[in-house]
This record gives sequence, C-alpha cells and structure tokens, in this order.
Amino acid sequence: MEFSAKQIAELIDGEIVGNQDVTISDVSKIEDGKPGTISFLANPKYTKYIYDTRASVVIVNNTFEPEREVQATMIRVEDAYSSIAKLMQMYAEMKPRKTGIEQPSFISDTASLGDFPYVGAFAYIGDHVKIGNNVSIFPNVYIGDHVSIGDNCILYPGAKIYNSCVIGNNCILHAGSVVGSDGFGFAPGADGEFTKIPQLGNVVLEDNCEIGANTALDRATMGSTVLKRGVKLDNFVQIAHNVEVGENTVIAAMSGVAGSTVIGKNCMFGGHTGVVGHLKVADGVKMGAYTGIGNNVKKEGVLLRGTPAIEAKAFSRSWVGFKNLPDLMKDVRTLKQEVKKLKGEE
Amino acid sequence: MEFSAKQIAELIDGEIVGNQDVTISDVSKIEDGKPGTISFLANPKYTKYIYDTRASVVIVNNTFEPEREVQATMIRVEDAYSSIAKLMQMYAEMKPRKTGIEQPSFISDTASLGDFPYVGAFAYIGDHVKIGNNVSIFPNVYIGDHVSIGDNCILYPGAKIYNSCVIGNNCILHAGSVVGSDGFGFAPGADGEFTKIPQLGNVVLEDNCEIGANTALDRATMGSTVLKRGVKLDNFVQIAHNVEVGENTVIAAMSGVAGSTVIGKNCMFGGHTGVVGHLKVADGVKMGAYTGIGNNVKKEGVLLRGTPAIEAKAFSRSWVGFKNLPDLMKDVRTLKQEVKKLKGEE
Amino acid sequence: MEFSAKQIAELIDGEIVGNQDVTISDVSKIEDGKPGTISFLANPKYTKYIYDTRASVVIVNNTFEPEREVQATMIRVEDAYSSIAKLMQMYAEMKPRKTGIEQPSFISDTASLGDFPYVGAFAYIGDHVKIGNNVSIFPNVYIGDHVSIGDNCILYPGAKIYNSCVIGNNCILHAGSVVGSDGFGFAPGADGEFTKIPQLGNVVLEDNCEIGANTALDRATMGSTVLKRGVKLDNFVQIAHNVEVGENTVIAAMSGVAGSTVIGKNCMFGGHTGVVGHLKVADGVKMGAYTGIGNNVKKEGVLLRGTPAIEAKAFSRSWVGFKNLPDLMKDVRTLKQEVKKLKGEE
Repeated sequence: MEFSAKQIAELIDGEIVGNQDVTISDVSKIEDGKPGTISFLANPKYTKYIYDTRASVVIVNNTFEPEREVQATMIRVEDAYSSIAKLMQMYAEMKPRKTGIEQPSFISDTASLGDFPYVGAFAYIGDHVKIGNNVSIFPNVYIGDHVSIGDNCILYPGAKIYNSCVIGNNCILHAGSVVGSDGFGFAPGADGEFTKIPQLGNVVLEDNCEIGANTALDRATMGSTVLKRGVKLDNFVQIAHNVEVGENTVIAAMSGVAGSTVIGKNCMFGGHTGVVGHLKVADGVKMGAYTGIGNNVKKEGVLLRGTPAIEAKAFSRSWVGFKNLPDLMKDVRTLKQEVKKLKGEE
Repeated sequence: MEFSAKQIAELIDGEIVGNQDVTISDVSKIEDGKPGTISFLANPKYTKYIYDTRASVVIVNNTFEPEREVQATMIRVEDAYSSIAKLMQMYAEMKPRKTGIEQPSFISDTASLGDFPYVGAFAYIGDHVKIGNNVSIFPNVYIGDHVSIGDNCILYPGAKIYNSCVIGNNCILHAGSVVGSDGFGFAPGADGEFTKIPQLGNVVLEDNCEIGANTALDRATMGSTVLKRGVKLDNFVQIAHNVEVGENTVIAAMSGVAGSTVIGKNCMFGGHTGVVGHLKVADGVKMGAYTGIGNNVKKEGVLLRGTPAIEAKAFSRSWVGFKNLPDLMKDVRTLKQEVKKLKGEE
Repeated sequence: MEFSAKQIAELIDGEIVGNQDVTISDVSKIEDGKPGTISFLANPKYTKYIYDTRASVVIVNNTFEPEREVQATMIRVEDAYSSIAKLMQMYAEMKPRKTGIEQPSFISDTASLGDFPYVGAFAYIGDHVKIGNNVSIFPNVYIGDHVSIGDNCILYPGAKIYNSCVIGNNCILHAGSVVGSDGFGFAPGADGEFTKIPQLGNVVLEDNCEIGANTALDRATMGSTVLKRGVKLDNFVQIAHNVEVGENTVIAAMSGVAGSTVIGKNCMFGGHTGVVGHLKVADGVKMGAYTGIGNNVKKEGVLLRGTPAIEAKAFSRSWVGFKNLPDLMKDVRTLKQEVKKLKGEE
C-alpha cells in the first residue's frame, strides 16, 4: 500500500515541510533510507544522516532545526519516535493474520478454543485447555493440560507451556520460550545426592506480558510464579520458582532472578543482570549491565551497578579508582620510603 | 485427596500440637496459606508468618518455640524442610502419569521402546534408538538415531537429543533442552575464515541427572562429554565439548563450562558463573554468582568469588576496598602534600 | 572403514615413524586412546600422554622430539591440529546424509525445495519459502513464510526461522536456535505501560555462518540484522535487532550484542561477554570472558577485559591492585599516623 506524506501527516498530527504528494510504501533507517520509504530522526547521533538520506519522507521532532537543505519531505511532530512507532503499529495491524486450523495438529477433545483461532501444524493442545479469542498458536507449540490462555495472544513456534499455567490477555510468547518448567529445588542428602523437591505450583502471566525467544519461567514449588501486568522480558531471561515481577518491569537479555524474590514495578534491568533469591527490590529500580543484586533494595528508583550492586555513581567513582590502582600503589610505595627517610630510618 | 494431620504426622514421624483431625488436600506457602492446606516453616526469615497463617497445618522444626499462640495445627519434626519435601514427593508420585502413544508420532521401525511408555504427538524417535521402561516422551521431543535412554526418564516437550548420545536411568530433561549439539570447534585459516572441526563424539548422562529448560550440552569432538551420576543443571547452562561434570555437582542458571574442563564432584556453582577451558576444578568447590574461574582449582571445598575467581573472603575484603577507593585516593593525595611540606619542598 | 597408517600419511602429507601397516577405524583423545584409533598431539600440555597412549597412530608436529620410546606409530606433519581436523572432515564427509521427505511434514504448495532435500517429520515449511540444494531440515524445524535458504544448509531439530529471513549457503543452525524473533523495542507511555514497536525488518545470514544451540537472532525494527560471511556463534548468543556482525567474527556462549551495534570482522569474543547498543567495535577486537563493552572501540585488534572494558594489560595490573587493596588500605592508615606524628600532632 502507498501513502502520501499528506496522509501520513494527518495520521500523526504533523506539519509538512516539502512536497506533500510524495508517496511511501515502506519504512527504512535514516542512514540507509531508500526512495519510496519513510524514516525518522529522534536520536541526535543520527542527525548527520538527514541531509543525504534517500528516504522520501522523514519524521522529525518539531525542535529540529536543519543546518542546511534537507532533500526529503519532513513531517514535524512533537515526538518523532512515538510517531513512527504509531505508524508502524498501524501498519502491523493492517497485515492480515492467519486463521484456521492446520493439519496435522493435536487438540484434545476437552480443550476449548475461542473465536478466530490460528492453530499451526504440529501444535499440541492438551486436556481441559481453555483458549480465548483471536489467539495465534504457531506450529510446534505445546500447551499442557489445564492451561488457560486469554484473548489476543500470540504463541510463536515452539513455545511450550507446562500444565496448569495461566496466560492473560494480549500476551506474546516468542519462539522456544518455556513457561512452567520445574523450579530448581533439591534437598541435599547425607551422601551428597540431591532429592528432587516436586514443583507443584504454576506460572501466572497477567495481561500484556511479552516473553522473548528461549526465555524460561519456572513454576512455583507451591503457589505461583507471577509476571504482573505489562512485564516485558527479552530473550534468555530466567525467572526462577516463586518469583514475582512487578507491573511494567522490563528485563534485558541474559538476566536472571533467583527463587522467591519479589521485584517491584516499573523496574528496568540491563543485560546480564541478576538478583539473588528471597529478596525484595523496590519499584523503579534500574540496573546497568552485569549488575548483580545481593541484598534487598529499599530505595525506589535507584540506579545500581556492579556485583554486588552499589549505586551507579559510587560505582563509577570506584571504577576510576580501579583503573588508577597501579599509580596509587606506586604513590603509596613512594610515600612509605619518604616517610621512612623523614623518620630518619634510612 | 484429603489427609488428616494425624495421617500426615505418621508419614513423617512427627509430633502433633493442636487438632489432629483437621484435614488438608493441598500445600501452600506459609505467608499466603489457605484453609485446607499444609505449609511448613524452615527458614527463620518466615517465622513471623506462622502466627497468622491460615494454613490448617504447619510442619515445624522441633526446635521451634512459638512466642505466642499459633492457630494452625503444628507437626513438629527433626527437619521441617526435608519432611515437606518427602510429603510433596509422595503426593507427586500418587499423580497418575500418562501412558500410551499419541498420534501422529514418528517411531522408527528399528527403535525399541520399553514397558509403559508415553510418547506424545509429534515426538520423533529415530533409527536404532533404545528406550527403557516407564519413560515419558512429551510432544515435539526429538531423539536422534542410535540414542539410548534408561528407565524412568522424563523428556519434556521440545527436548532434543542428537544421534548417538546416552541417557542413564531416572534422568529428567526439561523443555527445550539440547543434548549433543556440535562443540564450538573451528580451525582458523590463513584468510581469517574458520573451518569446522567435525564433532564426532557424543554426550553421556549417567543416572539421576536433571537438565533445566533450554540448557545445552555439546557433544565431544572425540570421546564423550559426561555428566556423572546425580548432576543437576538449572535452565540456561552451557556445557561445552569434552567437559566432565562430577557426581552430584549442581550448577545454577546462566552458567557455562568451556571445553575439556573437568569439574569435581559435589561442587555448587551459582548463577552467571563460568569456567575457562582445559582446567581441573577440585571436589566440593563453590562459586558465588558471577564468579569466573580462570585457573585450575586444587583446593577442595573452597568458596570462590570474582572474575578472575579468588577466595570469597579475600574478595569481600577487596570489595570493601573497592567501595572505599575514592576516599583512599583522597587520603593519598593529602599524604603526598603533607609529606612534601614535611620535606620542606613547599 | 579401516585405513592404514600409510594411507593416512599420504592423505595429510606426513612422515611415518613406526609400523606403517597398522590400521585404524576411529579417532580418540590421546589421554584415553584405544587400539585401532588415531589420535593427535598438538597442545604441549598433553605431551606426557604420548608415551603410554594405547592409540595405534598419533599425529604429531614435526618439531616434536620424544624423550623416550613411543609405542604408537607416529605421523609427523607440519601442523598436527590442522591435519587431524582435515582427517575428521574427510571422515565426516564420507558419512551418508539422510535424504527424502518424512511423513507427516508440512510443506506449503507455494514453497520450493531444491535437489536432494531431507525434510524430517513434523518440519514446517511455510508459504513462498525457497530452499536450495542439499539442504537438511531435521524434525520439528519451523520455516516461516517468505524465508529463503541457500544450498548445503543444515537446520537441526527445532530450529525456528521467522518469516522473511534470509539464510545464505553452507549455513548450520543448531537445535533450538531462533532466527527472526522480534527485537526488544517498546515505547514508554505516560502511565508506565510500554507499547510494542512492531519489528518490521528481518535477519540475513550470509554464507558459511554457524549458529549454536538455542542461540537467538532478533529481526530488525526496519532493515536487517546481519551476520556477515563466516560468522560463528556458540550456544546461547543473543544478537539484538539491527546488529551487524562482521566477517569471520566468532562469539562464545552466553554473550550478547545489544541493538544497532556494528561489530567488525575477525573479532573474537569470549563467554559471558556483552556489547551495549548503538556502538561500533573495530576489526579484530578480542574480549576475555565477562568483558562488557560500553563505548565505541576504535583500536583494531585490541584485547579487552573487565566491565566496563579496558585494555587487558591495564585490567590485569588493576586486578593485582584489587587483590592487594586490604594491604594498601592498611599501608595508608599507617602512613597517616606516621605523618601525624612527624607533624607533631600526636
């Protein structure tokens, strides 16, 4: 489909600078923009590209003042990033989704599907499963017995949900993600052997959660492991048994939260981060990459770094010291000699 | 099923304090206990909950002395944690397991299944595969040619075993785990291109191993990558080619062991830990989270921290120093000025 | 098949020391060599094993001078490691590969397969997919609509490729790997909720790439996430949206590259490494394990360590200082007292 700059500007309430009749049919990055595409400029790092981009239309913040001529038609808006996001959402929603049930697939007689399902080939839907409306279940997905899934969910290929877990509305599970595997719980025996502690609970995802590729959420030993409304987990995130992650908290890849820990809402955790078990982390806490929380965090909104985690500013100051340690050691050696001399010992 | 406090107490050899006729049919956590459930108190952190828990029965250590009245029936035992574990195991064993072969599944004519198998739909069992008794193979599992699997194993949905690997008795492979993928071996060429070194070995799991969701064990270049008896790996653990992990060693999530390293028995590795290739790690070694071993560890039972790893006590002392580095640098600057003055240079 | 030492020596242009008629039919590691196998000695760490190995033939560097008698027939070559690699490649190529289409599998009417395909049971090939010659698609593989795959590729069980991605020639995707999952992109709303930014791009793998088990490559928001020719990724590697990884770069397990970062060619990244988003990393950069790059790296070929990353030599010197921090603090305390005395303040 083609859209004119004029049509786009109306959709996102923007002001046109340039030819309003130029048309676009795709999006592109400003640094490798192509004719017939729309791009955007939000991060100042990329400003240099706007003068030479071959994109036909560029959405810019209305605070942007070009230093020389821009070939592309510009659409000036309050927030270029959210405007392009809005356009992309509209575009994505216009794409038709698959519906129907491909064969062979396995749907238990006791399972119930809502309206307009898509069930891909080799998908497995177990006994007493309940599935809402407009749910897309891609090929090779596994849904265990007694699982319940809300409306408008997407389960990408090879996602696996163990028995008795609960998925809310508007949730997205990416390929290879696992919901409800056993928590890592063992009782040590006298001979060094470990005995498995059965994990009898489940996992509950509230509405609007998204779970990245190959991410894994363990079921609770008793009760539920819970992702509250709006939680977003990147690929390769490990959520251990009985963890609770608060509303709208986002966690980047290669991160883990150990058993029974409760994470507040609106937290933002970078990549390769971790939290030890049985802790509480306050709302709005942020962690830089490779940060490992080893104690309760009571201060809301604090930014942490390091392992064990300390406040980011303190970490940065200490890191400067770490880099200067060889010089500091030399200074101290020199001082020791000088003091010795001053004391008349040499 | 319902059980009375009296019946439970007999099963775990405990002493009843309170109403022995109250019945339970489920387990719960003490902090959100519900009537009709049994809970336990082992970690002193949770002691405060026992006075108000709504659980009908609570198992406690016989050293526990309540400071005020406890509503629930208490069962006093030597070790509350292992008693609840024992009860949960009994409960788990009473649950019927699925048996039979769902359709469509793929079982090679040359494969042999033991007694009482469960083979889920879309499971694949290759040529010359040998499977023991009471094995559960969930949907979408892949078992390559010439694989051998012992008795009482559980292969959860989407577990994948490459050809020629060997799985012992009583092993559990969680969803999405991979056994026998190629080791990461390449020979560098003059032009910067890498040539693949074929990985001709396999992976051997001895009895009683458990492998977490999406964990991956690479096959040996030659010979075998080995998990000895009783090894427990959490989700997202990477075991490289030709590694050997000793008996009853447990490794937490997001951890990796590089090629040809030999890990001793009874080791305990925290999350995000790692061991460099071609090393030996002694028995009973423990690593805190984010610890990275870069040299042989000869001292049995040592607790390590940091990257590169050092003894945990030394790490903690140095970490205190790290946090104080800004002050230390300031002290040294002051000292330098004072010494200069004392030397009459200012 | 059996080969004589003489035949082997001819294949790898080596010089025989010992019985040229002894035969081998398998490979083994020198430390547990078995009669009838060929082994090799390249790493000096393993020299001690050559005198007692039971392997029938051992390939050695022609610089190797035995200190005492070696029982095995030796084949002396310029580079023992590349010679054994060459032999293993020949051996691997002699093994027949499966061909044909197992049932049930799902192949769209609009998909096109090349010559000599293997399509395992429960594999899914979507609409308008184009697949080259000699491609092996193992069971439970998912190939989304409009995907294109070159010649001689191997897709191991449970590999998943989302729609519209492009795979070059001679690529290997290991079990559970995911290509084309959504990038982790969300626009924050005023109420703390995040809105998904549709990920409309794809992933492109050029020729000769290998992707480890359970590794995940996210599709671009716009444009393409790209692995250039010859890139090798270990298990559990996370490549975020719009990343570009340069030719022949290799990345070890548990590592991640964040969004829009461009990695140069011939880089070597150790395990548990990471790179922050929107950066450029020069050609030939090396990272030790647990290194985290937080800024652009302009110096080609540099070896980095630490988080945030600094040059490895500087890191090592500072790490020595870190370990000595308790002593350093003590020295400074002593100096302070001594200077106080010298100043007559005590």
